[in-house]
Amino acid sequence: MVLPFDDTYFMRKALQEAEAAFEKGEVPIGAIVVVKDRIIARAHNLTEQLHDVTAHAEMQAITAAANFLGGKYLHECTLYVTLEPCQMCAGALYWSQISKIVYAAKDPQRGYGALGTKLHPKTKVLGGILEDEASDLLRKFFVQKRNLN
Amino acid sequence: MVLPFDDTYFMRKALQEAEAAFEKGEVPIGAIVVVKDRIIARAHNLTEQLHDVTAHAEMQAITAAANFLGGKYLHECTLYVTLEPCQMCAGALYWSQISKIVYAAKDPQRGYGALGTKLHPKTKVLGGILEDEASDLLRKFFVQKRNLN
Repeated sequence: MVLPFDDTYFMRKALQEAEAAFEKGEVPIGAIVVVKDRIIARAHNLTEQLHDVTAHAEMQAITAAANFLGGKYLHECTLYVTLEPCQMCAGALYWSQISKIVYAAKDPQRGYGALGTKLHPKTKVLGGILEDEASDLLRKFFVQKRNLN
Repeated sequence: MVLPFDDTYFMRKALQEAEAAFEKGEVPIGAIVVVKDRIIARAHNLTEQLHDVTAHAEMQAITAAANFLGGKYLHECTLYVTLEPCQMCAGALYWSQISKIVYAAKDPQRGYGALGTKLHPKTKVLGGILEDEASDLLRKFFVQKRNLN
């Protein structure tokens, strides 16, 4: 039996957001927030366009999801994001008490795992869903950027 | 000779922001960003009012300062904040490459120092400016909150 809504399904939606970032010349990272199989927030990285280091996909998705829910805690929510969150985003996810984080590609340099950022004890984490697709898009972006400079 | 603009002068401005947060029933933390003795951003914690865990004083001050400067990096900027930044805010400050962080009270539980969050190598840090005033205001807030519940 194939479930219509699984982690791969939702990660594809996050990847669509990453592609939207790519089209705008932003580092292609996308995120969505899901509650009970319903997408309540979609966002992509906008740090260049907004001249704002805080405009990571995850940060915007957290704010949008809380706005939708009318409360600051993201209990029963899952964040899908195409790259492992950084210190800032993991720190925000800590405060949100989110139930689950699913990421695609690992970030061995600046990911929260390597840097030891603390998540909330309630938060479960799963990595590697559509990792190759997310990594390929990031690689394509940086190759293109290098060739332009 | 008494300098008109020193760390104590600017921390008092950050404390005024913390007091504004207190008046709104928010955890009283305030922040300002200064460039060449000029305040370019003022903010206070608004997590309750906005239902948004990302609405810490520092995060708003970073966004406002970058908006003022028209660029995402806070080179030559100093952030004054009344409580030691958390993981999220320190992570944002890392990305901003800010020159200096001055904080008042230490946060031994959730401060970036205790949790080992990495700052940018360019960033200098100074703690303890008007520490007693900032701590007193936080204590007053939590005593009042406990008495109300």
